[in-house]
Amino acid sequence: MSGFTAAGYPKAVPLAMARRIEDAHGRGEKFAVQIWSGASTGPELDGALAKADGIEFRMPYNSDPTARDKINSGKIEYLDMHLSQVAPMVWEGFLGTEDIAVIEVTGIRADGSLIPSTSVGNNKTWIDRAQKVILEVNRWQNPALEGMHDIYYGTALPPHRVPIPLVKPDDRIGEPWFRCDPDKVIAVVETDAPDRNQTLPPPDTQAQAIAGHLLEFLHHEVSMGRLPSNLLPLQSGVGSVANAVLAGLQTSSFPPMTAFTEVIQDSMLDLLLTGKLASASSAALCLGPEAMQRLTDNMAELHDRIILRPQEISNHPELIRRLGCIAMNGMIEADIYGNVNSTHVMGSRIMNGIGGSGDYARNAYISIFTAPSTARNGAISTIVPHVSHVDHITQDVQVLVTDQGLADMRGLSPKRRASLVIENCAHPDFRPLLKDYFDRALRESYGLQTPTLLSEALSWHQRFIDSGSMHV
Amino acid sequence: MSGFTAAGYPKAVPLAMARRIEDAHGRGEKFAVQIWSGASTGPELDGALAKADGIEFRMPYNSDPTARDKINSGKIEYLDMHLSQVAPMVWEGFLGTEDIAVIEVTGIRADGSLIPSTSVGNNKTWIDRAQKVILEVNRWQNPALEGMHDIYYGTALPPHRVPIPLVKPDDRIGEPWFRCDPDKVIAVVETDAPDRNQTLPPPDTQAQAIAGHLLEFLHHEVSMGRLPSNLLPLQSGVGSVANAVLAGLQTSSFPPMTAFTEVIQDSMLDLLLTGKLASASSAALCLGPEAMQRLTDNMAELHDRIILRPQEISNHPELIRRLGCIAMNGMIEADIYGNVNSTHVMGSRIMNGIGGSGDYARNAYISIFTAPSTARNGAISTIVPHVSHVDHITQDVQVLVTDQGLADMRGLSPKRRASLVIENCAHPDFRPLLKDYFDRALRESYGLQTPTLLSEALSWHQRFIDSGSMHV
Repeated sequence: MSGFTAAGYPKAVPLAMARRIEDAHGRGEKFAVQIWSGASTGPELDGALAKADGIEFRMPYNSDPTARDKINSGKIEYLDMHLSQVAPMVWEGFLGTEDIAVIEVTGIRADGSLIPSTSVGNNKTWIDRAQKVILEVNRWQNPALEGMHDIYYGTALPPHRVPIPLVKPDDRIGEPWFRCDPDKVIAVVETDAPDRNQTLPPPDTQAQAIAGHLLEFLHHEVSMGRLPSNLLPLQSGVGSVANAVLAGLQTSSFPPMTAFTEVIQDSMLDLLLTGKLASASSAALCLGPEAMQRLTDNMAELHDRIILRPQEISNHPELIRRLGCIAMNGMIEADIYGNVNSTHVMGSRIMNGIGGSGDYARNAYISIFTAPSTARNGAISTIVPHVSHVDHITQDVQVLVTDQGLADMRGLSPKRRASLVIENCAHPDFRPLLKDYFDRALRESYGLQTPTLLSEALSWHQRFIDSGSMHV
Repeated sequence: MSGFTAAGYPKAVPLAMARRIEDAHGRGEKFAVQIWSGASTGPELDGALAKADGIEFRMPYNSDPTARDKINSGKIEYLDMHLSQVAPMVWEGFLGTEDIAVIEVTGIRADGSLIPSTSVGNNKTWIDRAQKVILEVNRWQNPALEGMHDIYYGTALPPHRVPIPLVKPDDRIGEPWFRCDPDKVIAVVETDAPDRNQTLPPPDTQAQAIAGHLLEFLHHEVSMGRLPSNLLPLQSGVGSVANAVLAGLQTSSFPPMTAFTEVIQDSMLDLLLTGKLASASSAALCLGPEAMQRLTDNMAELHDRIILRPQEISNHPELIRRLGCIAMNGMIEADIYGNVNSTHVMGSRIMNGIGGSGDYARNAYISIFTAPSTARNGAISTIVPHVSHVDHITQDVQVLVTDQGLADMRGLSPKRRASLVIENCAHPDFRPLLKDYFDRALRESYGLQTPTLLSEALSWHQRFIDSGSMHV
């Protein structure tokens, strides 16, 4: 299926499938499918198919609440993957064959090539690999999107891989359309249905505080000569904190910046509109209705400054390392040593997935993770003795930011990291507890490289499960 | 300091420093230094300086037992880094300035350029960045090493980075010598001292069993058409299991293979000698005395088939992904979901460091981790409910191999992984305990994406600390 965020995913065929699946289940028949996508999709796809109990396997990312519940109750097998690796691993062959690709497009050209929609995701790979292709031509999509996309056809399996010839975030290295063998197309469905991305509420106080600490840090790095005055290509995760950080850049004094990221959110579009951002490269346009209207209203000015790429390119380690991205991603929790959990609440219940955060964090010039210092009205501390699940190891987490402050952990050994993270990032309500844990770990741990009290390390999470709070 | 494994590290200056430090300490004076290297070094460097309490900070890797003890007792601050990131992060500037580089070389040429020694490591960066340079010219090193090295001078800070023009593992993209400003050289010390790599004992039964499972897997992948007949460039960690796997390749039927790795060990040299390996690229020659003699005896035949590179190139994510390396690394433990701990015994006591395993595992075509199924005479299970420290997340661990068998976890959700790992990799003595844990986690876990019993997850490790065994 096409789709990366609630953008560019098929809206009619999955709904029709869900009805067929429900009918089959009504007759007592088994009917469920494996769904591969770019990343998350919209309610007509993951929502409807999960509600119909029609998904037996899902990869590589989900954020739909119904599908999430089915995953966490064990009804859907879910493979949570690095987004850059989906296409190459599908080509490796161990994931099996792909029966049918269902791809939303903006249009079909006379030569059979396809005008992509609001997300590119893995569509090139799906079209190339599928035995049969169903196209949804969505007339809701703006025809002016044509030419915004950059579909790179130079990937290969080893030993035939070559350097990807991209050296600036706004380089175009491919072609604006998908190639598609017309003989594979078994159906064309016309739709007129909107993408379903939501407009985010304005940043709250916590998000603004996080943005403030992060912007101060970026200014400091420029003043120290460790970052160019217009920074380096920005990568930003999605959500309210990311939105606040980007909104904060609107009032910053940096010369026009660039973005090399996986989604263009509302506030990134606004940075393009004011000229704070010279260009933005991503795999999807994750724009709420009002922002989408602003894009339409300013298409002439913005068209050539937005580049939509396959996610194997937008998230490619080679390019992220080369460009030196500043990676800014949200997290569920971090521990005092800077390990980050991006995916699993209390170690077992998945929220969304690792997405592209691993692609960016490990290869970034500076890898930054952000979150409010508490969750659930203060019952949960974002800073814990030991994360309940690890997505990003300490080596890949250089800066932690909460509303309380920022910890620049670059170059620090684990013990130095711990002191800084407790002091700068933990909420004052939890700081004494963390200090007490760390002090005792320094005395009682088996080894002192990364002092750990194994019998207590995950007790905060267990306490939350038992009592609804991490407080003692 | 130069040095990557016990190869090519300075042997005289660190010993002299250790004596000065001991003298100063004898007079009640403080004297300790920060040591940066390529990776591990030899006893005259880490051993002597640690013994003298002369190291206050060490990065990016250590395997010296004296230094390890001081790290784990909290006397040395140790920063355990991805080896590919050391040079770029030093250039970023946040690690501070580099006062003096002490570099072993094979010779000094008339134009001031330097003939590298048995390891390249970070020497290019150390020489370029240091304010002053001390050279150790070691006449023990074979002058015929000249020309074997490939020093790439095309790296830069972003936004000036460009594609690294390497498309085959044996491409030479640089020059055979280090450039060095003669004005920076404050001393030249002549030495005649051997590298101190050890000859590994022949593989034991467990290592042979692991090698057998792994070779069977590789043959299977070739037969399924998922690997070329001569495989893809091999990366192999160090140690007895890695040695056994490479020895096993000696009797395999694959056409001449290649290696793109960070160290060339004894058995890899033997693969070159028999022609099983066409070429090998690495950052160091980690050869025991007999193997070093075999290299000397066959230098004419081997010289052009060995390429020694800076570790920022040998371990570069861009190149590992492009070449599609088959990454084979050892581990301390893995959990049932395929998270791997490569570094911390019982979660807190560091063994060596992550080294290059993260560089390779995340970007490999197939990422394989190996270990015997038990340690300490059966008291420790290598497969545990929950690893006590995470170096490699499930997404980066595709195949686990123990003497019991192999788990090909590619494409599997966490629960499917768990069943397979318990069945195929766990030792029979621990299998019922693991099954029991997993069965109960399936019933009692907070969420069922990655079923976890938080109050038990780390109890096996605590039991070992308390009782000397993970057995109940």
